[in-house]
Amino acid sequence: MTTTIAIAVYPGLTLLDVIGPYQVLALLPDVDVVVCAAERGRLTDDRGLVHLDVERTFDDVSAPDVLLVGGGFGNRRLLGADSPILEWIRASDATTSWTTSVCTGSLLLGAAGLLVGRTASTHWNCVDLLEGFGATYSSDRVSVDGKYLTGAGVSAGIDLALQLAALLRGDDVARAIQLGIEYDPQPPFDAGSPAAAGPAIVEMVRAAGEARQRP
Amino acid sequence: MTTTIAIAVYPGLTLLDVIGPYQVLALLPDVDVVVCAAERGRLTDDRGLVHLDVERTFDDVSAPDVLLVGGGFGNRRLLGADSPILEWIRASDATTSWTTSVCTGSLLLGAAGLLVGRTASTHWNCVDLLEGFGATYSSDRVSVDGKYLTGAGVSAGIDLALQLAALLRGDDVARAIQLGIEYDPQPPFDAGSPAAAGPAIVEMVRAAGEARQRP
Repeated sequence: MTTTIAIAVYPGLTLLDVIGPYQVLALLPDVDVVVCAAERGRLTDDRGLVHLDVERTFDDVSAPDVLLVGGGFGNRRLLGADSPILEWIRASDATTSWTTSVCTGSLLLGAAGLLVGRTASTHWNCVDLLEGFGATYSSDRVSVDGKYLTGAGVSAGIDLALQLAALLRGDDVARAIQLGIEYDPQPPFDAGSPAAAGPAIVEMVRAAGEARQRP
Repeated sequence: MTTTIAIAVYPGLTLLDVIGPYQVLALLPDVDVVVCAAERGRLTDDRGLVHLDVERTFDDVSAPDVLLVGGGFGNRRLLGADSPILEWIRASDATTSWTTSVCTGSLLLGAAGLLVGRTASTHWNCVDLLEGFGATYSSDRVSVDGKYLTGAGVSAGIDLALQLAALLRGDDVARAIQLGIEYDPQPPFDAGSPAAAGPAIVEMVRAAGEARQRP
């Protein structure tokens, strides 16, 4: 039976949040991966340099088995109660086996009311925003709380998607995909978490983040 | 001084090959990252599910400082001597400080004649193709031979780009970007290299690759 995996995108998303998982999930057997947005057509990422041409709208995807939402500064304007993406996330969640997020995609799940009382991961620099929606932050790379899988910042989507691949199709299929994308990470530095990077580097990133959020 | 970084894309590319590095390089200070293709407009990835809307052509990018080419099954039809992308790669390479590839992007550098007598990385399943262009394969995650940085399969582009970021702007800037994308990889399995994955998983991936290359 085909598993429908909906990947939601929006203007101002962080591309790697969704393309990491996409590259894993699109290699699964018997899946229909649907990249969808509020509107058809051109959509620009949070760096302003890559444009997606989106073919499917949220209305085109009903009752997905898996939902994946990525993060990006662009989602801060989608957190209001009447936001169409939140309506769709809530409706989709009613049928999913797995509802998942990467990075600040968790804020969209939170704003949709799905993380109240749950443990969830998000980007390390957005903990307060996440907890404002009633969730408890975990610094785990991937948090699993019931059917909710939430990943840490940006690149964590690859780890999350491999875990999800194993849940959907078993460990060996996930291993084959990992080998297919040669995911044998060897970062040249040990700076992938605030603790490892140290206070000076953390401050550089916080300052850059604040500058970007100014109107 | 602004550093121009050209990321070449083409129909049938593997998106993560270029979006991984893009997410790193677009966070560098004082860079002009240009995503470019042979033609403007819509371009579809190797899974057929994501479409880029490309604004810039190769002709729009002259004398880049850095060139990055990703892989994907779609590049097998670009390896002929009169292929426009090869012309452009050769011309660009004349001015670059760094000429780089991810995954089978190395085949394009090879077909352009840039890897003769050099050590280079590529996807583990494409070693013979690479060596057909006069290069010597290395299983290193990232090979550095002169100004040529070549990465292993797909996800290796993130490691390569962090190394490149450090070469361009210093180690602390690279560390800050690593923390910004929370690149603290924790694969759920140890299957990212042929040796770790073992022969049964290797065979699964080889068989899937061969099926995809049949016309």
